[in-house]
Amino acid sequence: MSDFVVGVDLGGTKIYTALATLDGEVLSEVKVPTMAAEGYERVLQRIAETVSEAKRLAGVSGKPRRIGLGAPGPLDVERGIVHVAPNLGWRNAPLKASLEKLIGVPVFVENDANLAAWGEFVYGAGKNAVDLVYITVSTGIGGGLVMGGKIYQGASYGAGEIGHITVFPDGPECHCGNRGCLEAVASGTAVAREARRLIAHGAGRAVLSLAGGKPEAVTARTVGLAAAQGDAEAKGLLDSAARWLGIGVAAVLNLLNPEMVVLGGGMMKSAPLFWETLEDEVRRRALPSAFGAARLVTAALGGRSGLLGAVAYALRPE
Amino acid sequence: MSDFVVGVDLGGTKIYTALATLDGEVLSEVKVPTMAAEGYERVLQRIAETVSEAKRLAGVSGKPRRIGLGAPGPLDVERGIVHVAPNLGWRNAPLKASLEKLIGVPVFVENDANLAAWGEFVYGAGKNAVDLVYITVSTGIGGGLVMGGKIYQGASYGAGEIGHITVFPDGPECHCGNRGCLEAVASGTAVAREARRLIAHGAGRAVLSLAGGKPEAVTARTVGLAAAQGDAEAKGLLDSAARWLGIGVAAVLNLLNPEMVVLGGGMMKSAPLFWETLEDEVRRRALPSAFGAARLVTAALGGRSGLLGAVAYALRPE
Repeated sequence: MSDFVVGVDLGGTKIYTALATLDGEVLSEVKVPTMAAEGYERVLQRIAETVSEAKRLAGVSGKPRRIGLGAPGPLDVERGIVHVAPNLGWRNAPLKASLEKLIGVPVFVENDANLAAWGEFVYGAGKNAVDLVYITVSTGIGGGLVMGGKIYQGASYGAGEIGHITVFPDGPECHCGNRGCLEAVASGTAVAREARRLIAHGAGRAVLSLAGGKPEAVTARTVGLAAAQGDAEAKGLLDSAARWLGIGVAAVLNLLNPEMVVLGGGMMKSAPLFWETLEDEVRRRALPSAFGAARLVTAALGGRSGLLGAVAYALRPE
Repeated sequence: MSDFVVGVDLGGTKIYTALATLDGEVLSEVKVPTMAAEGYERVLQRIAETVSEAKRLAGVSGKPRRIGLGAPGPLDVERGIVHVAPNLGWRNAPLKASLEKLIGVPVFVENDANLAAWGEFVYGAGKNAVDLVYITVSTGIGGGLVMGGKIYQGASYGAGEIGHITVFPDGPECHCGNRGCLEAVASGTAVAREARRLIAHGAGRAVLSLAGGKPEAVTARTVGLAAAQGDAEAKGLLDSAARWLGIGVAAVLNLLNPEMVVLGGGMMKSAPLFWETLEDEVRRRALPSAFGAARLVTAALGGRSGLLGAVAYALRPE
């Protein structure tokens, strides 16, 4: 009987795979480009290759006992079918069945944000928590809920979509079709859009210069860099996003009264520059008892939240 | 051994008490004014009196096995202490201990909105559901969550405060100190305020006439009556509240992906006049899979949701 498991964090641009003992000790990690453009079968092959490579690096043989895999949602967790994944170009992809056939071991598929929440809960910031809300602020904004020590999936595996709560009813259009979603005003994409808008009006010189003078090259990272160098306009852009994010986090606090909110994702690398603004807005918008009960923290596992969540999920699929 | 329980719905204006068999069959109900102005001890006495009266009406003797009691929050469920209840004039009232001493049976205190959710879950619209979000739209807006067949209390017994999520960041002030809370734009109080504002500008004649020509007598009920009689301004006021409510309900759907949302409270008596608008806004603001998975319904128990929830809680305190 094999004595290891594998966790896979499958994203639109990279496949991130870890092999761990049954005690959860990670023995090896592999990261490769997803190459989604080469098609579904090719991505399956690449996942299988990372598993082989992780085994080689860990010096183990045989098959993993189980594979836990985080995929972009929405998906059917029970049947392991990814309904829609624009980043991967997939529709109703039978990921669990395909991988089980290819690799020959049980595969448990979950939403990637749910597994990031689970990773922080089992190994990270929420190690000692019972409930936890995880929010990832990146190009988009997603989330996952752990309640009573379990991933909370919702009626159609869609719980935790904090990025699509409306915070600004007449605000900018969101790609989901609604207006003023949190994601449309506080994500990295939104910050970059607002920076380019400044630049189009002849402002935002520091940001533009860091993007090599090319407005189309401006990203949230450029804005974060400019803000870190003290640029007031860039700081203003981050502060504005932080205020919107605070409104969203406060909604979570009022609705769920969680003991902990963990904020992860690329945008949180700039967290020291806007944390005070974020916390200030949450305090203003949340009921005092909910604010007092909730610890707001950044993810402890950084870019590995989802990966380690997948490992933990392989060890104890729900 | 006694073979009955008692449920109490304690409000700022009335005490509503029911006596039920251990199978949950209600044998009698009593409703009396709370008379909160006469002080804490007097309210305790009145609760005890309703229990005696309910016994007399049901023709039973002895003591109830347990009392379940819904009280205005925020409160400490475990110790049965009501922290703040402006309607009752209480601060840190040790309700459980006081009543147990007075009546001599175990008393289990919960938040009133949570018990209304529990009532709908056990006896009402959610009888066959596993998860349910209950929202009461009345002078204020509150809510309760049932998840995995249990009341979800949150880290400090504050979960379900949907009335205080921000839906309109620069909107009207809420009594909680924040701006643009759902309660500040979609509650009965908000509808009445907007009606009086119309009247102050020389409009809203139908509403004013139904209030006997006195602006200060205008309530959400007056607006509902005028709307039912076809008054376009009154319908507009209800529609506006319904849109805000829809934004709040959509936030719940995106965050929790519940299988059912139950809407109760006095404002929902006018539901036929604004249901289409409400549903339209929820559809616009919620992700399609979350909208598709959720049944939106009005409370099946009307004003008895909280009472029957208290009975159910007495039968099976969590």
